[in-house]
Amino acid sequence: MSRYKEFSKQNIPVINQKMYDFLEKTSQSEILFDSMVYSLDAGGKRFRPLLLLATVDFFGQTLENSHYEIAAALEMIHTYSLIHDDLPAMDDDDLRRGKPTNHKVYGEGLAILAGDALLTESFHLVAEMEVESSLKVELIRLLAKASGSTGMIAGQVEDVLGEGKKINFRELQKMHQKKTGMLIQFAVEAGVLMSTQSFEMKKWLLEYAQNVGIAFQIRDDLLDVLGDEAAIGKKVGADEAHNKNTYVSLLGIEGATKAFENHCDLATESLQKAKGLLNKSEEVTLLEIIIEELKVI
Amino acid sequence: MSRYKEFSKQNIPVINQKMYDFLEKTSQSEILFDSMVYSLDAGGKRFRPLLLLATVDFFGQTLENSHYEIAAALEMIHTYSLIHDDLPAMDDDDLRRGKPTNHKVYGEGLAILAGDALLTESFHLVAEMEVESSLKVELIRLLAKASGSTGMIAGQVEDVLGEGKKINFRELQKMHQKKTGMLIQFAVEAGVLMSTQSFEMKKWLLEYAQNVGIAFQIRDDLLDVLGDEAAIGKKVGADEAHNKNTYVSLLGIEGATKAFENHCDLATESLQKAKGLLNKSEEVTLLEIIIEELKVI
Repeated sequence: MSRYKEFSKQNIPVINQKMYDFLEKTSQSEILFDSMVYSLDAGGKRFRPLLLLATVDFFGQTLENSHYEIAAALEMIHTYSLIHDDLPAMDDDDLRRGKPTNHKVYGEGLAILAGDALLTESFHLVAEMEVESSLKVELIRLLAKASGSTGMIAGQVEDVLGEGKKINFRELQKMHQKKTGMLIQFAVEAGVLMSTQSFEMKKWLLEYAQNVGIAFQIRDDLLDVLGDEAAIGKKVGADEAHNKNTYVSLLGIEGATKAFENHCDLATESLQKAKGLLNKSEEVTLLEIIIEELKVI
Repeated sequence: MSRYKEFSKQNIPVINQKMYDFLEKTSQSEILFDSMVYSLDAGGKRFRPLLLLATVDFFGQTLENSHYEIAAALEMIHTYSLIHDDLPAMDDDDLRRGKPTNHKVYGEGLAILAGDALLTESFHLVAEMEVESSLKVELIRLLAKASGSTGMIAGQVEDVLGEGKKINFRELQKMHQKKTGMLIQFAVEAGVLMSTQSFEMKKWLLEYAQNVGIAFQIRDDLLDVLGDEAAIGKKVGADEAHNKNTYVSLLGIEGATKAFENHCDLATESLQKAKGLLNKSEEVTLLEIIIEELKVI
């Protein structure tokens, strides 16, 4: 088993337990709880929380309660965004990861509320973490910035309004930086924040994260065209059907593949700089295994 | 002009400015910003933020930046909940305070995102307040508890699922305690938290807030039957048309009016206890003027 698979297998159950325990403790409605857990449980690969934990691991730190808690909060925000994105008023998707989407099972009203609740409880969970108040405030501030109208939601607005409109490459990159990039960068930034105060380290690892984020998005666009329906759990060609602007629609399959490889290389370069600062240039860290994993489409 | 009207006139522009400034600073999408401001600007009476400021005023404190900021965050959460409640999948309302609802103007997709953004930016705003970190964390924790799956969202789930189902008086009260009560109590609790550490004071003022919250809800149900469409800004009789459980449907107009007066009296009694602790039993405070204002239907 690859080291990343082993790392996933060890840590995903812990992340899941943190999410379920917190939601069970706070939820005053059984059906709301069920609908949140339905989407959390829908086979996500936990890419963002694992990236956060891999960043902590990069510094040789032992994974603790607080790391799993912020990882859980991050996955809850990500899941809320998927539930809302799938709604008929947005992407109108019936399937997500091979299972009926939340609103198909629980109805639109409850799906909206389950998303709202996951978003709110994510901040609630960070506020109840057992770490210093100043760290909690900074994590909340960064999480809100990455996921709110500065980041993810602004990107989603552009995505929804952009369907059918032709945009150029630069606009596409800016949209994705907001829509998916900033939350992926939060994963790494939170891991850095909980491990070191080095400004230079943060700079290189954020650059790593930015390139991983772009590569991740290009890969997503490529999978939509080349992927196996059973493996990606939704219909192939959905982007084209929605008239979405994607890396593939702008660069073609070959161009998008090259751009993907380019951003993987840039991520590796930044990571090498960060490893140099820790005198572990020779070591193979989980952060580079993550890049390799992205390449196995 | 009554003292409450004067207090409103002085403070509402400051609350508004805090909301608009923060959203303008953080929003990376113009149309998203517009749609948020459209709903914030739709003639709300700012009951919750004014209740918060009136609580701070109760302790003889000068109103400062941080008080207005938490008041603004509270109103942003309240407004998000209205935008989502009005959606076709929920209450399906076309009018709110006499203006077309958000989704009628901006479309359902953007209305969902505007709500999500107001919710997220509310926590973002608290995280950026210039007060001690420990106070910010406590405010975020309480706000999330009042508005998330412990409070408001759980109440809204019961409300949406309860349409057409007969529930009893106790169930109705529990639903409203979650749906509207806890956020109204947050207004008072935040004001107390920023002013005093007295456990007894908090106890009496929270009891005041609980009764004000119930009276406020009964008044809302009564207005839906007795109100003037021009004044309440929506169709009279909407609750009955939706087959909603209300104080009026369970107790009748006369019974609901009595219950309203009863809770106003209980609020006054608790407030007297709190005033006693401050040796200002004789003084007429804004917190009791708020009760009188509720009575002017």
